[in-house]
Amino acid sequence: MTDFTPPTTEEALARLTMPMADAMRTQRAVRRLHTAPVDVDLVYELLELSLKAPTSSNSQDWSYVVVTSREQKERLAKLYLPLFRIFGPIERRRAAGDEKAQRQMAPGQWQAEHFADIPLLVVPCYERNLKHRPVGRPQISVSSFYGSVFPAVQNLLLACRAVGLGASLQTLPIWIVPVAQRMLELPRKMVPVCVVPIGWAKGNYGPTTRRPIRDVVHIDRYGNQPYRR
Amino acid sequence: MTDFTPPTTEEALARLTMPMADAMRTQRAVRRLHTAPVDVDLVYELLELSLKAPTSSNSQDWSYVVVTSREQKERLAKLYLPLFRIFGPIERRRAAGDEKAQRQMAPGQWQAEHFADIPLLVVPCYERNLKHRPVGRPQISVSSFYGSVFPAVQNLLLACRAVGLGASLQTLPIWIVPVAQRMLELPRKMVPVCVVPIGWAKGNYGPTTRRPIRDVVHIDRYGNQPYRR
Repeated sequence: MTDFTPPTTEEALARLTMPMADAMRTQRAVRRLHTAPVDVDLVYELLELSLKAPTSSNSQDWSYVVVTSREQKERLAKLYLPLFRIFGPIERRRAAGDEKAQRQMAPGQWQAEHFADIPLLVVPCYERNLKHRPVGRPQISVSSFYGSVFPAVQNLLLACRAVGLGASLQTLPIWIVPVAQRMLELPRKMVPVCVVPIGWAKGNYGPTTRRPIRDVVHIDRYGNQPYRR
Repeated sequence: MTDFTPPTTEEALARLTMPMADAMRTQRAVRRLHTAPVDVDLVYELLELSLKAPTSSNSQDWSYVVVTSREQKERLAKLYLPLFRIFGPIERRRAAGDEKAQRQMAPGQWQAEHFADIPLLVVPCYERNLKHRPVGRPQISVSSFYGSVFPAVQNLLLACRAVGLGASLQTLPIWIVPVAQRMLELPRKMVPVCVVPIGWAKGNYGPTTRRPIRDVVHIDRYGNQPYRR
């Protein structure tokens, strides 16, 4: 183990003033985490900031389950690991000979194997009702459901990035939703959406590569890309 | 009309260094917009920043349709307005005697009536495939779809807030998805997810009220709220 001293909660909070564009430009999934505990008071501050994001009809029907006990993390790992053991070898075979793909897989592998050692898991949940649905139809009810959760998740990821906590957005760990729901003792209407594993970053934040914006944008109608280079 | 001079693109871009926490704390839906045109180059910069958000398996399957022509805006308004005319009176009846609810409805009403006057509409779209689905099941495919779009949308809303552009997240204007798709000439696999109307802010940004964080957070299992006050 390398020596690592996490910042104090006060030091960490001071970093939330990071210039916004810098936080966005250097956000990336950080999966290698120190096992040092993360102060729950700090996490409350970040979660509070995350909930400044909008919700459909201002419904604010979130719940966050913050998992810190080893027992609960091990139960969730038991749900996650079998899936990883099925898909891991498939992905590895697919990545054979592709060095970049292999390099990108390593942190995910590390995380799956150390799932119960991750200091803290945030499980964002949202209440299902007629207007807000996690599955099924119509699309507007489904997009209104997720449009009330993922903006808050993005705020959380940006806030983690600013203070120096490693974080990532994962949907796989709760792939069997009813089982995850039972483990977390969630009421039937309260639907877990994803998992954000959090710890002090061992991996690096830093610039990411994206498709050129002028290839992504269409003006007035799809296919009309006058600014494409 | 009040006098209004929008900032130059350079001035606007300089504002992207706003402290991140300030941008989050003062984000709110701003629906009253100046009709002054918005520089498309500025919008490209904001869209580029928005795409720094994560996507499922780093798929990056976005398209943005940026609607600026009056003709296209009027066609979209024709899709949106009938719905607003049905639900508007229902909402107004529900809000009768509730001054706060009535005050909250006014900007939405303004926006619906002036939909074709809004300088610019961004329509974020994402490609549908077996792993990423906008409707139906399983939940993991649906949440992976929206989890690849709404983090980017949140970046866009924060970036708009920082530079002083009014913006909001709306799902209603494209409620009949196949019709919106046809209007925007989108391929069948490219699914519009929401609409972000953008213009220089007439309304105010500023602090929002949210449920107390200690009521939203549960530790290890739902119902365990040791820090609830």
